[in-house]
Amino acid sequence: MTEAFKPANPAFADRVRRSFARQGFMAYLGAELTRVEPGFCEIVLPYQPQLTQQHGFFHAGVVGTLADNSGGYAGFSLLPADASILTVEYKLNLLAPAQGERLTARGRVLKAGRTIIAARCQVFALDQGREKLVAHCLMTLMALAGRSDRPQG
Amino acid sequence: MTEAFKPANPAFADRVRRSFARQGFMAYLGAELTRVEPGFCEIVLPYQPQLTQQHGFFHAGVVGTLADNSGGYAGFSLLPADASILTVEYKLNLLAPAQGERLTARGRVLKAGRTIIAARCQVFALDQGREKLVAHCLMTLMALAGRSDRPQG
Amino acid sequence: MTEAFKPANPAFADRVRRSFARQGFMAYLGAELTRVEPGFCEIVLPYQPQLTQQHGFFHAGVVGTLADNSGGYAGFSLLPADASILTVEYKLNLLAPAQGERLTARGRVLKAGRTIIAARCQVFALDQGREKLVAHCLMTLMALAGRSDRPQG
Amino acid sequence: MTEAFKPANPAFADRVRRSFARQGFMAYLGAELTRVEPGFCEIVLPYQPQLTQQHGFFHAGVVGTLADNSGGYAGFSLLPADASILTVEYKLNLLAPAQGERLTARGRVLKAGRTIIAARCQVFALDQGREKLVAHCLMTLMALAGRSDRPQG
Repeated sequence: MTEAFKPANPAFADRVRRSFARQGFMAYLGAELTRVEPGFCEIVLPYQPQLTQQHGFFHAGVVGTLADNSGGYAGFSLLPADASILTVEYKLNLLAPAQGERLTARGRVLKAGRTIIAARCQVFALDQGREKLVAHCLMTLMALAGRSDRPQG
Repeated sequence: MTEAFKPANPAFADRVRRSFARQGFMAYLGAELTRVEPGFCEIVLPYQPQLTQQHGFFHAGVVGTLADNSGGYAGFSLLPADASILTVEYKLNLLAPAQGERLTARGRVLKAGRTIIAARCQVFALDQGREKLVAHCLMTLMALAGRSDRPQG
Repeated sequence: MTEAFKPANPAFADRVRRSFARQGFMAYLGAELTRVEPGFCEIVLPYQPQLTQQHGFFHAGVVGTLADNSGGYAGFSLLPADASILTVEYKLNLLAPAQGERLTARGRVLKAGRTIIAARCQVFALDQGREKLVAHCLMTLMALAGRSDRPQG
Repeated sequence: MTEAFKPANPAFADRVRRSFARQGFMAYLGAELTRVEPGFCEIVLPYQPQLTQQHGFFHAGVVGTLADNSGGYAGFSLLPADASILTVEYKLNLLAPAQGERLTARGRVLKAGRTIIAARCQVFALDQGREKLVAHCLMTLMALAGRSDRPQG
């Protein structure tokens, strides 16, 4: 379903890790970047009570955050060293309650154009030893040539 | 564009506030429920460094969380006292960097069917005294008759 | 990625074919239902000049129509004999120009709840003997119990 | 909600009309371009039995086609004379059965960036003299600088 991708930057994995580490929100959630491959990214997040909605499950916003980020970094992994990535839009279908000890989000690039990158992401909940698909995401990313991945000014 | 809605539960605003207060994630983000009307909900979130992506702006996942929640509670406001709400899916277009002192999300019901509710939400960033539209969301909610809004068991 | 599904109606394939045959629009486009399996549906559409956008490629609306229909019938294949299906929403990413001799849309159910069904669909263009992925769709369907699939009254 | 837009090309309305006229699919459906303004486009389509789904209503693919096209031409109206437009993705919520004598789609640009344009569209059905909202669409367009709106080669 997905092609094999060649990263434009051989140091892509390191670049993704450093960008992830600059996201204050990932540390605040307790999310961990567990795999980076060309056109692929996996993020894991253990359960904590402060990440919940009213029934005590992971909040849909947390699920969406992981989906957006794993798809975004899947796209970022393919970019040249001087380009930055932007999420244009994402669409998330919530398939089951996000209940369990941890979430795992796996983002994959579907098609990498020069400017526009389409990606999809699946989010799984590990519940009593079994991974269950809880969300499916389809998204659009944009490569920004010559734009730093760090804060400006 | 949007109809005037009649809430099935006269105590709808109180019910929304109590549900919001049970969401651990809203407190963790520092989000505040500022307005509840039939088919409408507004949430405000002040800037904090732990809510950011790599450029120092609000993380897209934070923007999506507010969008989902404001649309979800807009829908919840119309339900009978014994029904619960579920986000089936949401789609978020990120229109501008979410940069500023605070975010304001305003969710509105577009159409309320018996089971399916469509809503949209706009997220604004207050930047140097001016509100700027940063995201537009279109979503699907589902009413669950006879299901509690509290944790089970 | 997708589960194995059990159709509630053993005559599901026949029911899908008869519903497809009642869609005036499918005949008008020249679309053909080529495969029906539990939770899966394939539709093929040969090129015709009246199906094009301004560059002479298949119109995005045609691509969306096939995506919607193949996902919708994938969901319909799982329903009991007295239930009808409704598309709640669909989201289509257009990945490449829809150029070629024919389009093939393949819809698959991702998750079948009692009321809500999530499906995805991929649309391929056959261009000079090679299938190319031109669109990816993620959608929400709703099962309507006790509602006929035929016109009322 | 939407800004006032300045078209880059003073002859924008004429350019939209000529592009619309080159779309074989619009003529085949019987669709008419009824209004073009900067960042806005309206398309009308009378009922015909060959445009229907199995219950005799307008097919969701027809609704999606009008939504995509009215949003797309809303965006196209703002482009310079040498640029072309591309639909990156669209998301359509179907709010009510598309039943009636005709459909009217109204697309509006939400935000026009240099490369990426976000638009939304509403589709109405005229049923026994009353306009009813049947679909809401949120979409992403891309401006292609220096690319002709006509077939190449």
